[in-house]
Amino acid sequence: MDASAARICYEDFEVGSVRTFGPRRVTREEIIEFATEFDPQPMHLDDKAAEKSMLKSLSGSGWHTCAIMMRMIYDGLLHESSSLGAPGVEEMRWVRPMRPDDELTITLTCLGKRESKSRPQVGVVSYRLEMTNAKGEVVLTSSYSGFFGKRNPGAAS
Amino acid sequence: MDASAARICYEDFEVGSVRTFGPRRVTREEIIEFATEFDPQPMHLDDKAAEKSMLKSLSGSGWHTCAIMMRMIYDGLLHESSSLGAPGVEEMRWVRPMRPDDELTITLTCLGKRESKSRPQVGVVSYRLEMTNAKGEVVLTSSYSGFFGKRNPGAAS
Repeated sequence: MDASAARICYEDFEVGSVRTFGPRRVTREEIIEFATEFDPQPMHLDDKAAEKSMLKSLSGSGWHTCAIMMRMIYDGLLHESSSLGAPGVEEMRWVRPMRPDDELTITLTCLGKRESKSRPQVGVVSYRLEMTNAKGEVVLTSSYSGFFGKRNPGAAS
Repeated sequence: MDASAARICYEDFEVGSVRTFGPRRVTREEIIEFATEFDPQPMHLDDKAAEKSMLKSLSGSGWHTCAIMMRMIYDGLLHESSSLGAPGVEEMRWVRPMRPDDELTITLTCLGKRESKSRPQVGVVSYRLEMTNAKGEVVLTSSYSGFFGKRNPGAAS
């Protein structure tokens, strides 16, 4: 949303601050629905095929894990922020599979922030993200950056 | 699938080889459906909000671009391979937005391959990926690796 209406703008991110989002439960039906459309590898669709795979039992597509991560970040942060999108992902690891009935939690640590050189009304915030399941096992880690509008583009930061 | 049944196994990847997949057309309805579920930022849902955004008109979620990329790789390569999944993504850039009616093409270049130290029946293949639209503009770039079963685990590579 417009920075003038957003509760969280570029200025509000503190380096070292930590936010947590979730838990978000994932169902077997969701896993199969996503995989059927976007990643129909047998280990994401069929129990017997999954048992024979490296992952040992049915697991979600890694891209489904990412899509759920996105929604959790939206619900926990972006929906009330001046987010302007993201340029990409520096690194991402699918450390463990996402399983049916997993309850996922995200920890988002602000690693840094800088002003955009080309757009004075925009700042770039960088993060380290970790997603864990209910056992506390790491499912996904990522480093990425996002663009945020400034509340006061003219002010010194 | 099992390496004994797969047309493409670890041994079949040649460093420097290039594969192309697509074109795959993306509809406005798909963009809105994915965004509604996973990334409901206004620029992915609503024309007027999108016009005011940095992206200037309606665009798909970057994670939707990734999900479509996954399906294109599945249809073009993985479905007839001994793919065993992927550990993650080294780097990914959403260079340009994915727009309604884009016709997307992927170019996948094999950058390297190595045998797994811990699992003699598995090899790791690394790639550079580029997704372009019908104008030849780059939409997404990525570097990542995938695991593939070997046809002949005992043989020298």
